[in-house]
Amino acid sequence: MQIDKLAVLGVGLIGGSVAAALRAGGSVGEIAGYAPGDDAQVARALGFIDTAHDSPEAAVEGATLVVVAAPVPEIPALFERIRNSLGPQTLITDCGSTKRSVIDAARATLGETFLRFVPGHPIAGAELSGPQAARAGLFRDRRWLLCPVDATPAQHCESVREMLAPTGAHFDTMDAALHDRVFAEISHWPHAVAFALSAAIASGELAEQAIEYSGAGLRDTTRVGASSPTLWAGILLDNREACLASAARFRGQLDALLEALEAGDRDRLADSFATASRWRSRLG
Amino acid sequence: MQIDKLAVLGVGLIGGSVAAALRAGGSVGEIAGYAPGDDAQVARALGFIDTAHDSPEAAVEGATLVVVAAPVPEIPALFERIRNSLGPQTLITDCGSTKRSVIDAARATLGETFLRFVPGHPIAGAELSGPQAARAGLFRDRRWLLCPVDATPAQHCESVREMLAPTGAHFDTMDAALHDRVFAEISHWPHAVAFALSAAIASGELAEQAIEYSGAGLRDTTRVGASSPTLWAGILLDNREACLASAARFRGQLDALLEALEAGDRDRLADSFATASRWRSRLG
Repeated sequence: MQIDKLAVLGVGLIGGSVAAALRAGGSVGEIAGYAPGDDAQVARALGFIDTAHDSPEAAVEGATLVVVAAPVPEIPALFERIRNSLGPQTLITDCGSTKRSVIDAARATLGETFLRFVPGHPIAGAELSGPQAARAGLFRDRRWLLCPVDATPAQHCESVREMLAPTGAHFDTMDAALHDRVFAEISHWPHAVAFALSAAIASGELAEQAIEYSGAGLRDTTRVGASSPTLWAGILLDNREACLASAARFRGQLDALLEALEAGDRDRLADSFATASRWRSRLG
Repeated sequence: MQIDKLAVLGVGLIGGSVAAALRAGGSVGEIAGYAPGDDAQVARALGFIDTAHDSPEAAVEGATLVVVAAPVPEIPALFERIRNSLGPQTLITDCGSTKRSVIDAARATLGETFLRFVPGHPIAGAELSGPQAARAGLFRDRRWLLCPVDATPAQHCESVREMLAPTGAHFDTMDAALHDRVFAEISHWPHAVAFALSAAIASGELAEQAIEYSGAGLRDTTRVGASSPTLWAGILLDNREACLASAARFRGQLDALLEALEAGDRDRLADSFATASRWRSRLG
């Protein structure tokens, strides 16, 4: 589906890659971008966007589709700023890693335009960030979840899906509350664990030897611990309730493991590891 | 350095790969193998070893070099069994992931042969196990630590290093106590964290959705959680003291993180993540 004008708010890894993918797909006329700091200028220099704007209001003017790809904590303020600059047909979607808080902010801010907001979450990303890391192929063959509310007209979902089709993602819909619980469990809380493990090693007396001797195992286990600290602090706080539920399950397993280790209980330790290993082996 | 007869006790991933690498290097005459269960027959069928023995005593008879590649908890019993079958020139090394307990067992068991025991730890491995996963290139360009005690003659270290050179590993020496602390920190305890995270997800109500929706991040964070449960229960218990010290540092970071998350303290959360991220970025 043709997009006469695409506005991308936040042109880091995700927003830059959306712009790059739709440009590569040839279905978009103008691409306008806004980002605080230098990201928009960098994205323009890299050819992802045509115009770099100083304000989100200017960027969205006359847009067919607005893609909000800012960090989750910044999204409510962006909605506030663009609410009066959106055209009567403009569709809006976002790329936030949490959905309930974004939907709440949109409902509170966008007025009747709320019905043209189709909440989204592309399941892609990397421990990298910024427009320098963006690439047209980031979403190819990855999932892209849409979390419309009951009131969202199906035609708007379908239009957003068709406009974003050149990204090569596989689109699916999911209830926003379930989305947030699932992603706390499989992404947000695991990031916290990787951060905590990395911080424990970094602040220990063996931090240098750990750099020297660690192998592929530790690099994998801690990989997402190199992610953006502010971005992930924002995501965890935004999805706090679900993250604390995932954390409680993890703490329960950890406490049981430590109890078995302290007691020298080989069978209990091996049983717990076997539960873990069976599940993990299914992940591929 | 030529090895007239190599004996490998335990021919799973590590032992099978040692045999395969030395065979490929062309420096070894006969390769004898022993393993409980079917592993020795499988390793012989795969061409890694020439003879599959029913007992470790028979396998080591007349051996130039004995490589003990059994799981750490099984090594003391193997030392007991082979002590009277070792020739007066035979050199012995092991591949155990912990070193102090193996050295203690060797000192208690091997008598004067203890001086011909060169404790070792090839830093390679995978979440896979068994001779089916073995390959000649497993150790190429990986580190292989030797942890001789003060009494170990340097010439024996050098001989073992030369005999194992065809594996393509880079050899280095390290104090055994430091070794055990470093590997608790960078390998043993991180395995426990990956097991606990996998077990928490596996036993939660979102286990199926987690399989369906998880991406590269969770696959990396939990990858070593697919490792052998009994092998890793053994390693953690064997290196329990150092693992509990690493666990205490991790628990401290985790508690601080949860406190900040519960309090909604964005700055504290981001600061802790920044410490983690800076360290992790150095790992590459």
